[in-house]
Amino acid sequence: MVLIGLVGAGIERSHAPLLHQAEADRQGIRLHYTTIDSAEHGLSAADLPDLLRWARTLGYRGLNVTHPFKQAVLPHLDVLSDDARVLGAVNTVVFDDDASRGYNTDAPGFARSFARDFATVPRERVVQLGAGGAGCAVAHALLSLGVGTLTLVDLDRARSTRLAKALTAEFGEGRVVAGQPGELSATLAAADGVVNTTPVGMAHHPGSPVPDADLREDMWVADIVYRPFDTALLRAARAAGAPTLHGGGMNAYQAVVAFELFTGRPADAAAMRAHSAELLDSGL
Amino acid sequence: MVLIGLVGAGIERSHAPLLHQAEADRQGIRLHYTTIDSAEHGLSAADLPDLLRWARTLGYRGLNVTHPFKQAVLPHLDVLSDDARVLGAVNTVVFDDDASRGYNTDAPGFARSFARDFATVPRERVVQLGAGGAGCAVAHALLSLGVGTLTLVDLDRARSTRLAKALTAEFGEGRVVAGQPGELSATLAAADGVVNTTPVGMAHHPGSPVPDADLREDMWVADIVYRPFDTALLRAARAAGAPTLHGGGMNAYQAVVAFELFTGRPADAAAMRAHSAELLDSGL
Repeated sequence: MVLIGLVGAGIERSHAPLLHQAEADRQGIRLHYTTIDSAEHGLSAADLPDLLRWARTLGYRGLNVTHPFKQAVLPHLDVLSDDARVLGAVNTVVFDDDASRGYNTDAPGFARSFARDFATVPRERVVQLGAGGAGCAVAHALLSLGVGTLTLVDLDRARSTRLAKALTAEFGEGRVVAGQPGELSATLAAADGVVNTTPVGMAHHPGSPVPDADLREDMWVADIVYRPFDTALLRAARAAGAPTLHGGGMNAYQAVVAFELFTGRPADAAAMRAHSAELLDSGL
Repeated sequence: MVLIGLVGAGIERSHAPLLHQAEADRQGIRLHYTTIDSAEHGLSAADLPDLLRWARTLGYRGLNVTHPFKQAVLPHLDVLSDDARVLGAVNTVVFDDDASRGYNTDAPGFARSFARDFATVPRERVVQLGAGGAGCAVAHALLSLGVGTLTLVDLDRARSTRLAKALTAEFGEGRVVAGQPGELSATLAAADGVVNTTPVGMAHHPGSPVPDADLREDMWVADIVYRPFDTALLRAARAAGAPTLHGGGMNAYQAVVAFELFTGRPADAAAMRAHSAELLDSGL
């Protein structure tokens, strides 16, 4: 029996409960996945120590943690994974014997999706749009996946410069640069692929972060937006003949990674991906 | 999805998780029943307000509460059932919208077991051994089941006198008397039946609370001890030719009543009773 919860605000539409429950059913594991809406229960960051203590006491095996607690939960955990420490954010907590362990599934979620669908794409020069929290995770994944040079482009130049510096310290000189937003078209012209990690393309941030004219047949385009999973960027990329990777894959693999952390058993990634695609497709 | 827990000390052998889980499975309800061992988690009565708050927040539909919290939990609940108020003890909590409701299943558990197996036994004069917490519940059940005169016998005479007085205030003059322990044989000689509510007969309280010589063919004998469910008292009663009722029935019906409170749906009492008997029989 495995008891899991999702803690955060605006989680009523999350697919995580359905994805975990269905995978557990397939495996014959009794899993119960609850949603703990922080707004509904008036929970603030100050409640996190009690929340963690009582979740453990009340039999929870772990928690998924989302906005607004991904950073705030970090100091209250006993052990952090490398991903969580580097990103300064935790979205998965596992209560293990006497330790609470914090993980971040953003980077492995993106990496597994990319490795599956884009296993053979060229990656000498890649442009990443956005240098926020998700961008930091995706940049880590891209560099670990063998990207030669990653150019980070963010409207907030200080943010992309800061992230480039941190990644350079980790991955070595010449692997990451902060690009000029005004030179995006020129940068893209020399790139093998581009990844969007900004919110542009989400329902409440309509539009595309890349001018349609900059998209070419001989580049690939990935988006981490998954609601909708067919964004304006991806539609324009397909129209230009470019191979595309939508954000639904990363989202599904994050659930795969979390399921494996919670249960200690390998998940049926193909089944979870198909289920996730079906749910996103249905507009739920 | 229904999340339930059992809170208390020494609960590792409780059959409640198995009984609830199996009944939920039969009904196609997703139910998850956890055990929260107060010793293991260092919980005291002072933790009860937090425990209740967090159980509700973390998605619990209700709790079974046992020793040492059955009395202590009472002032922290919003609404009490009549049974719980009269007994001053709660063993079942249901979180209902914004109210936490406290119930006690002791009396209905005994009543349903008695009504099923002893529906037609004479009950003009009944002797009850023990006037503690369980005795109070059983006495209520017996008087509600139409017992004419109930004689309470407890080694602590003050306790039986106090309970007799309280029950008289509730059920009227002449229905309940406190008997003299030294006159047990004479009292039993005039009785239609006897109920043991003391711990005598449990594994760590071996023996029988009634002299074998006082048992007759034309009286019935009930015991609420259920570990073992075949006590020395019941064996002697059978040897004397008396009809018997073991404590496994009350125990099973308590789970039936709790299941119905938790889920709002009728339980398959026969199936739960059979399952409980099987578990007790297996010595688990």
